[in-house]
Amino acid sequence: MITLTTFRSVPSFAAGYVRDLRVRWALEEAGLPYSLRLLDFEDAAKPAYRKEQPFSQIPMLQDGDLTLFESGAILLHLGERSPALLPQEANARAQVTVWMFASLNSVEPYLAELVTLDLFHAGEDWVAGARPSAEEMALKRLRDLDDWLEGRDWLTGEFSVADILMCTVLRLLDGMGLVERFGRLSAYRDRCMERPAFRKALADQLALYGQLPAAA
Amino acid sequence: MITLTTFRSVPSFAAGYVRDLRVRWALEEAGLPYSLRLLDFEDAAKPAYRKEQPFSQIPMLQDGDLTLFESGAILLHLGERSPALLPQEANARAQVTVWMFASLNSVEPYLAELVTLDLFHAGEDWVAGARPSAEEMALKRLRDLDDWLEGRDWLTGEFSVADILMCTVLRLLDGMGLVERFGRLSAYRDRCMERPAFRKALADQLALYGQLPAAA
Repeated sequence: MITLTTFRSVPSFAAGYVRDLRVRWALEEAGLPYSLRLLDFEDAAKPAYRKEQPFSQIPMLQDGDLTLFESGAILLHLGERSPALLPQEANARAQVTVWMFASLNSVEPYLAELVTLDLFHAGEDWVAGARPSAEEMALKRLRDLDDWLEGRDWLTGEFSVADILMCTVLRLLDGMGLVERFGRLSAYRDRCMERPAFRKALADQLALYGQLPAAA
Repeated sequence: MITLTTFRSVPSFAAGYVRDLRVRWALEEAGLPYSLRLLDFEDAAKPAYRKEQPFSQIPMLQDGDLTLFESGAILLHLGERSPALLPQEANARAQVTVWMFASLNSVEPYLAELVTLDLFHAGEDWVAGARPSAEEMALKRLRDLDDWLEGRDWLTGEFSVADILMCTVLRLLDGMGLVERFGRLSAYRDRCMERPAFRKALADQLALYGQLPAAA
């Protein structure tokens, strides 16, 4: 039995972007049923939850006697349960782990930093000074990715948990028009989002937060 | 035969902090011999290297017919070669992966953002405005870690690659006096740095960059 922990409610701008989406998507790709444990936002910082999740974050996953946090670790675990998420051949598997860490350590921090400026510091007088270097770094990573995708449909040979992570990382920039500057990259993101498992996961998250999905 | 790729030379402030240190340290813990492939900094952005490493970064690792980048993925691979780095029991192994991803996605980005302000944007007029929220976020993560370490010598049961990652992440803040505000956390960092494998790895990196180690 698999249980996914996420927030019971989120601000409306976050619906469709909550990090449990990564786990929902992987579970759908693997065909693994799951139930939800819903956490009230104000309980995340309390000692009981911080004993399980020291940073007060979601998602968490319980799978039998295993309890995990960090979306990367959760997806690696699910990958070991399903070859639809992670190839079993050692070399191919290692390349997927390369791109899991690349998504979360070489790409996401720079995109998140830019989004944080626009979302949480909008209007503060220092943001105009901070933004150019943050955008430049984010664009550099997007350009590197666009180059990597030349001749590739997925980050590695087949669709994997690395693509789940990278697509959800790229979606941080939705509405900013940055990914759209790169043809291969935006086509890649769209290819990921066209997968039925993504659409199901997104619809389920939107339904939980009381938002009707756009087209499902 | 294992080959580690790193830069041939770095600015003096970076000596002792280049990311190959994580890999050197893991290789020393595992007792795995390796040789170096030295990359000229100006070659990192050239197409030949970017075919191997799309973000122009080091370290890379070659191990037989396997070529990897991302320090997290490299350490996971080495962990699979050595129980001194990663326990073989499934549940314990999964907890180590949790803390590998936590180091690289929930802690490092916030510490790196703060360091980037001080190191690469010092004196720019917007930094004074940006710094308080960046420091607050970094301190929150340090406090969470300090709480987690209550009653623990290492992040999980035994020393592992997760501790290698977290210690090198914490060292980003060297000289800033922030880690030192947290007793358990600074003791943990020091405990990591007292390991002979860390000292050997650090001495080797300093020697390559022409800096004598402080005490080795």
